[in-house]
Amino acid sequence: MSEQASPSSEADLGPQEREGTIELLGAIAYGAISGFTRMAADSEMARDLVLKRALAGMAVKEFHNHELLVDHVVELGGDPIEAMAPFRAAFDSFHARTRPRDLLEGMVKAYIGDGIATDFFLEISRYVEPTTRAIIERASSDHRDVDTIVAAVRAGISEDSRRSGPLALWGRRLVGEALTQGQVVASERDALSELVLGLNHDRPGATLEEVGELMQRLTDRHQSRMGRLGLAA
Amino acid sequence: MSEQASPSSEADLGPQEREGTIELLGAIAYGAISGFTRMAADSEMARDLVLKRALAGMAVKEFHNHELLVDHVVELGGDPIEAMAPFRAAFDSFHARTRPRDLLEGMVKAYIGDGIATDFFLEISRYVEPTTRAIIERASSDHRDVDTIVAAVRAGISEDSRRSGPLALWGRRLVGEALTQGQVVASERDALSELVLGLNHDRPGATLEEVGELMQRLTDRHQSRMGRLGLAA
Repeated sequence: MSEQASPSSEADLGPQEREGTIELLGAIAYGAISGFTRMAADSEMARDLVLKRALAGMAVKEFHNHELLVDHVVELGGDPIEAMAPFRAAFDSFHARTRPRDLLEGMVKAYIGDGIATDFFLEISRYVEPTTRAIIERASSDHRDVDTIVAAVRAGISEDSRRSGPLALWGRRLVGEALTQGQVVASERDALSELVLGLNHDRPGATLEEVGELMQRLTDRHQSRMGRLGLAA
Repeated sequence: MSEQASPSSEADLGPQEREGTIELLGAIAYGAISGFTRMAADSEMARDLVLKRALAGMAVKEFHNHELLVDHVVELGGDPIEAMAPFRAAFDSFHARTRPRDLLEGMVKAYIGDGIATDFFLEISRYVEPTTRAIIERASSDHRDVDTIVAAVRAGISEDSRRSGPLALWGRRLVGEALTQGQVVASERDALSELVLGLNHDRPGATLEEVGELMQRLTDRHQSRMGRLGLAA
């Protein structure tokens, strides 16, 4: 997508585009606070205090991301609680269907699940005006504790190689559930889809080909994360 | 206790006093991260997103307190993971024995449990040198979200007055469990007790009378918190 296709500032936003932008921020903000809760709760499984702190630190970054996004919803004249509400069911289902049974699964989820969500939102942020895009990018930066988590997963697998196959399946399940919930959201939220597809405003949105390329980039990055963990994607 | 009874700076710390100070910081730091985990997990029970954010915000403050205390352990030449280790069993038991069954219990616990722990550590901080004391005080300041929690508990009780009696009992149980675990810790950790009692260093520690007064202050403040929630202490 070319640069001039996106509006140049918040002030230029038409009402439908503003609505789509607020929806997008609401989705990411709810994803962040639900990620916070799950990661924080999963950190309880860590007996190793270094890992417990790393998971807690990742969770806390999610909370700060949440606050950043919520503040921007308010700046755009939206109500954050209303903006998040339509996305609760999807994120809550995702987490309910992907409860880690132990710390290794929890760490793979923290890295893989967070990674897919972040990549997806970064892709979508290309279709919003620059201020919002910058905020989404800031909320998407990697946490320094990610390296600790990756190293711990690799160590866990090398200690017990029988974990490797089931964890690879677990990674695939995480993507599958994320895609399922993503499709539910996309089919229900018109303003958000229109934002990406460029409907109802006078600039070109994503073509079908671009949507295909987007999916390919998401898949590639997911595979590279799985590879970093030493798992087959 | 008089001001001159405490050492005037970190540099003046004798080895035993340093050990006691590091133990104290380790205890508070582990309390903070375990409080973080429990509060964050309990925030999952909140359907109301405003409350969910308030509980999450309180949890995140605990994590930042944890980081502040851990950094100071490092400054004093201690190993934070080692310093926290002796206190895990006590805090973990406390939390295992006081799992809230619903959001109202969770909010009472966040307010009452956190309040008792904070008061206790603030009392003990009088017996440590000023730099450490200032850090403990900073880590003990009230979170702005406390008011949201207090209001929500009051609203919950006024909606269903039958909750009042059981929640008052719950408050008493929280204190009882906290005292039990506090006594276990005190009986096991010599350096910490000696810090308070002024043994093994050349300044007066707390007299038995002062320990009695300390307990009275803790009780008074607990009662005033219960009163603020509209509960009989």
